[in-house]
Amino acid sequence: MNYTLKNIPERTVKPRDKGFTMVMDKGLSVRQAEDLVETCGDYIDIIKLGWATSYATNNLQKKLDFYKSVGIPVYLGGTLFEAFIIRDQFDDYRRVLEKYDIQHAEVSDGSITLDHSKKCEYISTLAKEVTVLSEVGSKDAAEIIPPYQWIELMQKELDAGAWKVIGEAREGGNVGLFRSDGEVRSGLVQEILTKIPMEKVIWEAPQKSQQVYFIKLLGSNVNLGNIAPAEVIPLETLRLGLRGDTFDYFLNGDAKL
Amino acid sequence: MNYTLKNIPERTVKPRDKGFTMVMDKGLSVRQAEDLVETCGDYIDIIKLGWATSYATNNLQKKLDFYKSVGIPVYLGGTLFEAFIIRDQFDDYRRVLEKYDIQHAEVSDGSITLDHSKKCEYISTLAKEVTVLSEVGSKDAAEIIPPYQWIELMQKELDAGAWKVIGEAREGGNVGLFRSDGEVRSGLVQEILTKIPMEKVIWEAPQKSQQVYFIKLLGSNVNLGNIAPAEVIPLETLRLGLRGDTFDYFLNGDAKL
Amino acid sequence: MNYTLKNIPERTVKPRDKGFTMVMDKGLSVRQAEDLVETCGDYIDIIKLGWATSYATNNLQKKLDFYKSVGIPVYLGGTLFEAFIIRDQFDDYRRVLEKYDIQHAEVSDGSITLDHSKKCEYISTLAKEVTVLSEVGSKDAAEIIPPYQWIELMQKELDAGAWKVIGEAREGGNVGLFRSDGEVRSGLVQEILTKIPMEKVIWEAPQKSQQVYFIKLLGSNVNLGNIAPAEVIPLETLRLGLRGDTFDYFLNGDAKL
Repeated sequence: MNYTLKNIPERTVKPRDKGFTMVMDKGLSVRQAEDLVETCGDYIDIIKLGWATSYATNNLQKKLDFYKSVGIPVYLGGTLFEAFIIRDQFDDYRRVLEKYDIQHAEVSDGSITLDHSKKCEYISTLAKEVTVLSEVGSKDAAEIIPPYQWIELMQKELDAGAWKVIGEAREGGNVGLFRSDGEVRSGLVQEILTKIPMEKVIWEAPQKSQQVYFIKLLGSNVNLGNIAPAEVIPLETLRLGLRGDTFDYFLNGDAKL
Repeated sequence: MNYTLKNIPERTVKPRDKGFTMVMDKGLSVRQAEDLVETCGDYIDIIKLGWATSYATNNLQKKLDFYKSVGIPVYLGGTLFEAFIIRDQFDDYRRVLEKYDIQHAEVSDGSITLDHSKKCEYISTLAKEVTVLSEVGSKDAAEIIPPYQWIELMQKELDAGAWKVIGEAREGGNVGLFRSDGEVRSGLVQEILTKIPMEKVIWEAPQKSQQVYFIKLLGSNVNLGNIAPAEVIPLETLRLGLRGDTFDYFLNGDAKL
Repeated sequence: MNYTLKNIPERTVKPRDKGFTMVMDKGLSVRQAEDLVETCGDYIDIIKLGWATSYATNNLQKKLDFYKSVGIPVYLGGTLFEAFIIRDQFDDYRRVLEKYDIQHAEVSDGSITLDHSKKCEYISTLAKEVTVLSEVGSKDAAEIIPPYQWIELMQKELDAGAWKVIGEAREGGNVGLFRSDGEVRSGLVQEILTKIPMEKVIWEAPQKSQQVYFIKLLGSNVNLGNIAPAEVIPLETLRLGLRGDTFDYFLNGDAKL
């Protein structure tokens, strides 16, 4: 840090198992990726190339080379996995991971209907080759999964070999964990946490109010995802109690660190 | 593309008459323009320097030189044309196009009152010198033009020499084709399409839900405009059925390609 | 300017006492800062490193060096000042300003409770060392300060040595001067202006509708703040009556220049 302030919440450091930040890159140039790392690379634990943007991005190999050179792992969005599965191209998907030397993979079923035992099979197959993140929660705003089922799905996916499970929110933060207006489904989150350890979950929380909610509930070192590149530093200040929204909370001494 | 997926909608290639994307640059630096072209230059058919931002941008000549060097045409926003017209400086406007070697021009009347035969005169005069895009629809949310009149205006402007007509939405996507909350005026759009061929229209659609609407209605190769630089790759994935919002649609086999 | 349009509102030039633009940098890279200055450096009068983002930004010294090299002053957000004060580290705060050779400072109490005479003391102490901007208005949406009290606070802070006073809006533009939906508290603004000269106030106005409101009320050369980097050129066109929202207003000849 650039100067010293007393009583700042302690943050975990890389490699983080909790308190980590997953950033969504939906088409950065190499230079923009460099800029991001220059300003806040220490706070970026993993980068997701959002949904299938990697398919349509001209500079993919160069950008992956750059992220590798600075030690930040990258994975491809779950919608891309689903695009391969629905086309019966699972092996082609694995070859893409191999071709680009990608060490993490997301398994999701937000846009397709996938038998859950089949989903868990994909998780275990991939878990032998890469680190798997699996995602729970539909991208379809109309499909509401009850809490006990979220928990059951998450537990089975962890058992199948997922490193962490992701609570779905989409780029906009208006499905899955959230109501269509972006409000957190708070009862759902709290019920999940009675059964699944917080370090095993990454909460997609693209909107500031959502980040504030999770930090107030679970402390500075909650795992958050779908953070826009320009919001990584602002999020870090929220985690540290150095922005209006979380300022009081940490000073009151009831922060969960 | 970076890898192969089966059954991807076929996209037109440059120079595109349909399926093209007009991007709004409201003040990019030369480096940011280079970054944009690096990641997704193939999908950018034309760049609009939004409204009169070209007047107040310090690096105008250099940026135009860059866009020319990569073969992407540029035009100046319609509000700038109107700013010259209302000041009785039409000839000065033509000299600006000549000075900067700009080969496209927009003729619009979103902010001024212009007799329609006079507007068509400007279109024909300019059409002798450059390629003209003409815009229909007021920037004033209170002024609602009925569908039959949109059609009549569009047809006359095409007859006067416009290459394509633009359906107005402003940067925010909340006037003209859209209600103030951004919802598409769907009856209007469908009625326009009974008379005007879809390849002659560019629909301004800055919001994702608006892009999804037009892609579902008219297929991957609909002409869309006022796309923000960071949204060009996301839009391309929507066109390809590789984002949650259009994923089902293309798989169902009823995509209009 | 790149070409000549008649009857353009006259703008003040640097160093501006009125008509100035305060831009919020919440974590730009050095290259992004260079890009900003390339496209619109003439319109940027001062840069605020938003709230406490300077604490968590890796490239702070280099970026400050760059801004200094192009003659644009920088200050640190008021929330950072408050973070030092609440920890009883005022002298440490002054050492930070000295260490980084920062010549402006913001004194605010948006997130802490601070006796007003104590706040004025901080203003006078700092005013002996740097140029002080002081901010009035809580970041807490629930706390409504009546107009007469805004005026009293502003006047006392100017008397204590503040160069200018800032009307609070936060990055989102939804507290202080604004209702939670972003609408201007118009009666408040107009009452303030009966007592405080407009050149002594900087209005935080991150949203376009807010910028339009102040330009229509006070003319091109109103002092505006919390402008996002990508909105500096768009704001300049609003000031010049060259965007739809202010186009009519200036042509009608009733612009306040």
